[in-house]
Amino acid sequence: MALDPGNVVQNAIYLSGGTEWPIGYEAWEARARESLDRAPFDYVAGGAGAEETMRANLEAFRRRPLRPRMLVGTAERDLSVEVLGLRSPAPFFLAPVGVLSIVRDDAERAVARASTATGVPLILSSASSTALEDVAALDPPRWFQLYWWGDPELAENLVRRADAAGYGAIVLTVDTLTLAWRPRDLRNGYLPFLNGAGLAQFFADEAFRGRLESPPEESLLPASLMALSAFPNLALTWDDLARLREWTSLPVLLKGILRADDARRALDAGMDGIVVSNHGGRQVDGSIAALDALVEVRDAVGPDAVVLMDSGVRTGADVVKAVALGADAVLLGRPYVYGLAVGGQEGIEAVITQLAAEVDLTMALSGARAVAELDPSLVA
Amino acid sequence: MALDPGNVVQNAIYLSGGTEWPIGYEAWEARARESLDRAPFDYVAGGAGAEETMRANLEAFRRRPLRPRMLVGTAERDLSVEVLGLRSPAPFFLAPVGVLSIVRDDAERAVARASTATGVPLILSSASSTALEDVAALDPPRWFQLYWWGDPELAENLVRRADAAGYGAIVLTVDTLTLAWRPRDLRNGYLPFLNGAGLAQFFADEAFRGRLESPPEESLLPASLMALSAFPNLALTWDDLARLREWTSLPVLLKGILRADDARRALDAGMDGIVVSNHGGRQVDGSIAALDALVEVRDAVGPDAVVLMDSGVRTGADVVKAVALGADAVLLGRPYVYGLAVGGQEGIEAVITQLAAEVDLTMALSGARAVAELDPSLVA
Amino acid sequence: MALDPGNVVQNAIYLSGGTEWPIGYEAWEARARESLDRAPFDYVAGGAGAEETMRANLEAFRRRPLRPRMLVGTAERDLSVEVLGLRSPAPFFLAPVGVLSIVRDDAERAVARASTATGVPLILSSASSTALEDVAALDPPRWFQLYWWGDPELAENLVRRADAAGYGAIVLTVDTLTLAWRPRDLRNGYLPFLNGAGLAQFFADEAFRGRLESPPEESLLPASLMALSAFPNLALTWDDLARLREWTSLPVLLKGILRADDARRALDAGMDGIVVSNHGGRQVDGSIAALDALVEVRDAVGPDAVVLMDSGVRTGADVVKAVALGADAVLLGRPYVYGLAVGGQEGIEAVITQLAAEVDLTMALSGARAVAELDPSLVA
Amino acid sequence: MALDPGNVVQNAIYLSGGTEWPIGYEAWEARARESLDRAPFDYVAGGAGAEETMRANLEAFRRRPLRPRMLVGTAERDLSVEVLGLRSPAPFFLAPVGVLSIVRDDAERAVARASTATGVPLILSSASSTALEDVAALDPPRWFQLYWWGDPELAENLVRRADAAGYGAIVLTVDTLTLAWRPRDLRNGYLPFLNGAGLAQFFADEAFRGRLESPPEESLLPASLMALSAFPNLALTWDDLARLREWTSLPVLLKGILRADDARRALDAGMDGIVVSNHGGRQVDGSIAALDALVEVRDAVGPDAVVLMDSGVRTGADVVKAVALGADAVLLGRPYVYGLAVGGQEGIEAVITQLAAEVDLTMALSGARAVAELDPSLVA
Repeated sequence: MALDPGNVVQNAIYLSGGTEWPIGYEAWEARARESLDRAPFDYVAGGAGAEETMRANLEAFRRRPLRPRMLVGTAERDLSVEVLGLRSPAPFFLAPVGVLSIVRDDAERAVARASTATGVPLILSSASSTALEDVAALDPPRWFQLYWWGDPELAENLVRRADAAGYGAIVLTVDTLTLAWRPRDLRNGYLPFLNGAGLAQFFADEAFRGRLESPPEESLLPASLMALSAFPNLALTWDDLARLREWTSLPVLLKGILRADDARRALDAGMDGIVVSNHGGRQVDGSIAALDALVEVRDAVGPDAVVLMDSGVRTGADVVKAVALGADAVLLGRPYVYGLAVGGQEGIEAVITQLAAEVDLTMALSGARAVAELDPSLVA
Repeated sequence: MALDPGNVVQNAIYLSGGTEWPIGYEAWEARARESLDRAPFDYVAGGAGAEETMRANLEAFRRRPLRPRMLVGTAERDLSVEVLGLRSPAPFFLAPVGVLSIVRDDAERAVARASTATGVPLILSSASSTALEDVAALDPPRWFQLYWWGDPELAENLVRRADAAGYGAIVLTVDTLTLAWRPRDLRNGYLPFLNGAGLAQFFADEAFRGRLESPPEESLLPASLMALSAFPNLALTWDDLARLREWTSLPVLLKGILRADDARRALDAGMDGIVVSNHGGRQVDGSIAALDALVEVRDAVGPDAVVLMDSGVRTGADVVKAVALGADAVLLGRPYVYGLAVGGQEGIEAVITQLAAEVDLTMALSGARAVAELDPSLVA
Repeated sequence: MALDPGNVVQNAIYLSGGTEWPIGYEAWEARARESLDRAPFDYVAGGAGAEETMRANLEAFRRRPLRPRMLVGTAERDLSVEVLGLRSPAPFFLAPVGVLSIVRDDAERAVARASTATGVPLILSSASSTALEDVAALDPPRWFQLYWWGDPELAENLVRRADAAGYGAIVLTVDTLTLAWRPRDLRNGYLPFLNGAGLAQFFADEAFRGRLESPPEESLLPASLMALSAFPNLALTWDDLARLREWTSLPVLLKGILRADDARRALDAGMDGIVVSNHGGRQVDGSIAALDALVEVRDAVGPDAVVLMDSGVRTGADVVKAVALGADAVLLGRPYVYGLAVGGQEGIEAVITQLAAEVDLTMALSGARAVAELDPSLVA
Repeated sequence: MALDPGNVVQNAIYLSGGTEWPIGYEAWEARARESLDRAPFDYVAGGAGAEETMRANLEAFRRRPLRPRMLVGTAERDLSVEVLGLRSPAPFFLAPVGVLSIVRDDAERAVARASTATGVPLILSSASSTALEDVAALDPPRWFQLYWWGDPELAENLVRRADAAGYGAIVLTVDTLTLAWRPRDLRNGYLPFLNGAGLAQFFADEAFRGRLESPPEESLLPASLMALSAFPNLALTWDDLARLREWTSLPVLLKGILRADDARRALDAGMDGIVVSNHGGRQVDGSIAALDALVEVRDAVGPDAVVLMDSGVRTGADVVKAVALGADAVLLGRPYVYGLAVGGQEGIEAVITQLAAEVDLTMALSGARAVAELDPSLVA
């Protein structure tokens, strides 16, 4: 990463015209809005319902200010984290985001290359537009996000493929067993999956292909509709989790937990970790801010459980607050997608660089030499 | 209803240009504003005084976020409710709204046809522009909203007619014994009743007609003024409720209750239910948000009393919150009136379809398989 | 008053184009802005400092919603109040406002005529542009607001003249012993007193005139500067109040009290009443909202002490809230000044009529038949 | 100072066109924006990150209203303070602000002359563009702000020079051991130090000059880069403070403390005082509002410790609130920099005059005759 709090000269170069990248979340979003057509931009930027939860996610960070410590001696800092064996040079990973091909061609490969270059791991979405094996071929540090499709054969295949391709954990998303009510997409009449976007895992599955009359390369719409039909799985329950253990010995995290009781239940069911999330305000509008849920969840599961968090993280201060309040690391979503939209792999790297610098500076100036020193006493 | 959370393909058709309807309350309101002249739009959209209560109604929903449960298994859901024998496929009814003819010709018949088509019951307003018998002839699932006019003979006739026409309950509005201070209407010099709108129940009453020198069809203004004169009834008290029981054996609900003591008193007076409401912020400006009052009222009357709620319900999340906090069902007001303004019967059906879909998705994604599972633990 | 909640037909005439007056505080203010030059408008509309207290005054009303009672039977209502022998048909008086001549010629006579016509008493400002005797000649129901000038002879004369002219009480303003920091006036370079406005009580004082080389009618600036010099009196303390009792046997109220301890001290000092006020946000910017101070003060002085209130009252709901929370009556300031600016005497009467109607409707619809029934249980 | 609350005539002259200066913080800022190029304006006006802490600083003052006392007798007031031997005629000093030369040529001399003229002390920044000896030559009442540079020889020299030049105390800034993430500057590519601005203390240091191949006057960039390289010092800890005592016997205050534990530790380490500050929101974005931290700190250190405060002080009410809540005095930052930008020395004096008048009026009207009478009972 190019910025170093202790190296003013080096930073001066970055400062003095060394960057044409946007600075700050809103600037990245504005640039992405210029770069994209309205429908894909809205797909990324929008949320469910009246977007109240999107707003609540941000507001929760505002309500919890930092209480920096002085004169701790922070010349040396270690921002790195390791979660279930996955290391990152900064306390964030790249969240799973589906259908990234609407933002840029060959999107997942750009993400993978940025991940490899920076060392910040990615969590590949089940709804990506590149086959998980092709992403794995670039060998980024990686986990796999699982949409447990309603079709059991395809779901099992997906898990086994991810395991075989060297993904280090399964992040089972439990808050999106079907798509939510998203007014922007409804207004735009926009369902990108209809032309095959985000369905690469289906199309790379031999069993799926075997069911088709003609392959997706020849006849896209029928294949897309069949894949879409296999997606929803509202029947999934806690009892099903045992099956997942038969398909893989990888660690499993549940993503989308918002309640203490659900968090405890997940651990009782043998899950290896939790991602507190409201899917960036994209699923249940009106739901509790993720940061508020994080506090409740960490309190319930104790200090040793693996708890990640996403939804509303925009600045270095947000990262530091979330970690101080109990997240082992946070996941970045829209921030890096805007980087992708603006500048492809390089844009993602710029976002990562900037956010890491902001986290580093916030830690340096708040008296934290390592991520482990971020604890609730740092937040009012 | 056309949308089904578990059927992504079906929804995809709706999503991909399948609708020209607005999506979301603000979009419906904006379209209605374009469709209507200013005075009738303001009549619908406006409230009393400085419209503080209108704002407070919305804000109260924002203050109470949902706490979704995961992995409950919500493939099968039952959104239906039954309140005092009236069933609805979704936990909402169509609130009584007066003078709908200012929005569209033959408005109440459009509402009735939408009600019949969707199964969502209507509560016909005493201030409708279509005789209650004519609405009943279309046989929608129906209750009758009673403005207990100051003229006792006419009030009694009204109740007896509603009973005879097959309305299943009387919803006595207690918060509008006279019209409130509504600045938008005052500025517009707009009192739609003056040309007979909203007075159909009077004009269809033989006793009323017998008092006129010439029938309304020939001489509208004198008839309208006489009807208006018969409207206010600030003298009405708890003691009068017994008389209502002499006129009908239908269940009676009091609409407009905002306090625990009033709610208990209503039940003690033998009422069959309560509608917590501030009339959408149209009567006492500065009054408590309806959702806050609902919490107080449900706490006071216990779990078995019939309690409905309106005022401020805009989204599926709002419906779910209100029900979780104690409403047996909610009443929709402005949302369906905007549907009527934009598209008549079809517009109302679109509003109902969309809101039902949003409720359904919110329940599906929050771990509620039936309305009965919506309880306060689902709200923070 | 022309509006009657129980008389819809009469109101209908008002509603249906019967008024060209603005409706609602913001509309009156907007019209006044059009009617006045910028400097006098800013003088009226502005406050001290960053105008934070002006905003806080309004916000305090928003934080305390009403809890209306139903079915009380409010056909007959009595809005009248009597405070220390002064009766008003509505629970408000016209607050003392200085320098009204900047808004309209012969302003105080217009106020007096509106007061006489409506029966709503006025409290004449020491800083009026019409001699107190000339206002008294129109015989409105009246109290006198006292600025206890730094010049003791002139202050004593002023009190004795007010007593002789039939003012029923002295309202001693304690929060304006000098003018505050008012940025709008400073920006406009606007000190209306410099050309004699607001100094009529000085100019009508024989002792004052005797000190001048030539009378104000001939040489205005020296007279104005001499009057201004006599104004400030920051030396005034609790101990001085006894002297006031030597000058008059009229009841005395202290206006500008914002603390419980000061309120108790005023009563201990034999004062007959208190006006909780922050001078409409025009003196100490950053000070507590008047409604919040009212609650504290009423709690401290018990139910029997005379407590009035002003600062932030804009709507009928505000009047009702203030009275319910402990004010025996409220004082209106800017609302009637805007009426004066827009329409002279008739404008003031329109403001009074509208506000009384709004109060009346709020009481009628909230279950209060008399001002005495407005108690804290009506506010959440 | 030209304004006197008790002298209305004198003020009238000021009021009536006697000033062309802006009135109020926002007006000064707006005028400064017109006067400056974008980059230097943004450097002054901007903050770290998303500027949340800048907003929080202001909001904290809004949340804590004043509770003015009446009739105390405030004809005579003493606004002066003395802190560790440094007197000011008003309870504020001029905060250390670096790189003022971006705002106006010869900036620090203008500040020094304004300080001398008004008697309000300055705290000279280590990052000033004028050598500390040259500022001292104008003999303003003065302290020296210390950036404890990473280069120990240069840091020691700096302290010894300040001591020798008659600065009365060392204010060691502990929150800026490196520069923070400031998006406005990053967007503008603006690092003013690169062309020597703010580096005068380095350039006046013989040891520093001895290391250069050619002096800054001849070869600016290498000298600037060398100085910048010597700046960061994240290694500084509590243990280093003892060394400072070896370099000087002047009182030492720590500036940038935001926590009770750090405040106590500073006193335990023998420091003579604390400046509660978040550097005007320019360092750790997301950090606690300075006023909130002040309350916590004063509570922790007891009434006798020296505690100053800055960050968010904009109005006279803000000054009074901060002092009432525990600050012995506050430091002004942006307000006087805008004065400098708008009008040089005279602009600074105008800002000081205005703010002193506002403080004086606020005290006069709130019942405080001396700064010592400002205590927490004056704040709600």
